[in-house]
Amino acid sequence: MFESGNNAALTTRLLARTNKITLTSGLAPKYLQANLIILPSRFASDFLLLCQRNPVPCPLLASSSKPGSATALKSHLPGISDAAIASALDICTDVPLYMVYDDGNLVKSHCSDIANEWTDDHVAFLIGCSYSFEAALTAAGLPPRHTALGRNVPMYSTNIPLCAAGVFTGGTYVVSMRPYRKADIEKVRELTRPYVSTHGEPVAWGWDSVERLGIKDINAPDFGDKPLDLDAADDEIVPVFWGAYVGDRCDGR
Amino acid sequence: MFESGNNAALTTRLLARTNKITLTSGLAPKYLQANLIILPSRFASDFLLLCQRNPVPCPLLASSSKPGSATALKSHLPGISDAAIASALDICTDVPLYMVYDDGNLVKSHCSDIANEWTDDHVAFLIGCSYSFEAALTAAGLPPRHTALGRNVPMYSTNIPLCAAGVFTGGTYVVSMRPYRKADIEKVRELTRPYVSTHGEPVAWGWDSVERLGIKDINAPDFGDKPLDLDAADDEIVPVFWGAYVGDRCDGR
Repeated sequence: MFESGNNAALTTRLLARTNKITLTSGLAPKYLQANLIILPSRFASDFLLLCQRNPVPCPLLASSSKPGSATALKSHLPGISDAAIASALDICTDVPLYMVYDDGNLVKSHCSDIANEWTDDHVAFLIGCSYSFEAALTAAGLPPRHTALGRNVPMYSTNIPLCAAGVFTGGTYVVSMRPYRKADIEKVRELTRPYVSTHGEPVAWGWDSVERLGIKDINAPDFGDKPLDLDAADDEIVPVFWGAYVGDRCDGR
Repeated sequence: MFESGNNAALTTRLLARTNKITLTSGLAPKYLQANLIILPSRFASDFLLLCQRNPVPCPLLASSSKPGSATALKSHLPGISDAAIASALDICTDVPLYMVYDDGNLVKSHCSDIANEWTDDHVAFLIGCSYSFEAALTAAGLPPRHTALGRNVPMYSTNIPLCAAGVFTGGTYVVSMRPYRKADIEKVRELTRPYVSTHGEPVAWGWDSVERLGIKDINAPDFGDKPLDLDAADDEIVPVFWGAYVGDRCDGR
């Protein structure tokens, strides 16, 4: 799953660095994709613990080797060395687009780099992204419907509490949803199970899980795009939910 | 937290081996205490994944080094070698009392050894136990009320789903409860936070968390002893809940 010696990931990062791409879905498919969160160092140990206690929605791949390091990472993947995580990296430029928050308020949206925002007090965290297992589903003949439709995956806030960690309290799981035939669910679970660093197997599936997760309207996701052609009266095609990155909802204030 | 070179843990295990003790609360206080679960090997990889995905209720400390091994363990604690986990161990005799299940049905209760039940197909798992952090609370002048009363900790089934792992689906968190003064909660959180291998800091606290966890009656725990002198009208002393080992409720059938 984690392949080195080939430069597809570096090529993708260089395209992001030079602002040639605005998203990474489908690029460098044999590499792990990551979400990026950057925090002031005073929140770093609590955020690390949040990931450690909630590995399904927050699978921590790597973090800055020390506060202020935007180029050297510490690996949190067993068996993967710090050096193998990424070469010739610059956290401040190598992501296609950034959102900048100040005390929880969005102050810059979709900007192409954060060279002026990064300080010696910042710590970067890379969290596994489900783009990584979608290629495996597609390869097995079970492409996620949203990719077939050229849309983003629908995501929902749920009532499942995240385990508290220091200043990070009161958070709940976010889940991503991909509809599948009931008959394919065990296969879908098996295919995504090995992807422990990128949310792994689903956390819930079936129409009855929608209410259990506290989702009021499956056609009104909280993040991502609306799911098309999904009908709660359809007993054959049902929603399947994976843990998803909690993103900027855990800002520790 | 994990101290070697002293034989209090071995002494305790030898007392259990020779049936001189029936519980371990308060014994070998500088060592990690563990819960034991033994499964047929066909469930081992799914159970390992269950622990990996739910580390707060199921913090995995160690497992049999291979199926059938009752004397050699593989460490799952970062930085702790296999050899440092336990010396001169026999899983079949070194626990004070065992419960034996056959296909989910209890067939032997509170027996003193399992030498006749253990086979080459069994895998033992050791899960962190909250007895480990209770000593730290007591040392800080915040003894858990149940220990002061000479009772077992009350435990409750909740509606918080465990993340599914292979055959282990549909499980929910069990929590243990210790009442504390509202003013002491941040101190209690800090004291137990470092105990990541034995459930760590609380997952919820306060009277409003009782309903949120789906607990119907705080005075009717599902496991352990009733909490005494706990009054929902008391706004000063409130329940504090920790993740707890899910025990025999996850038998993988």
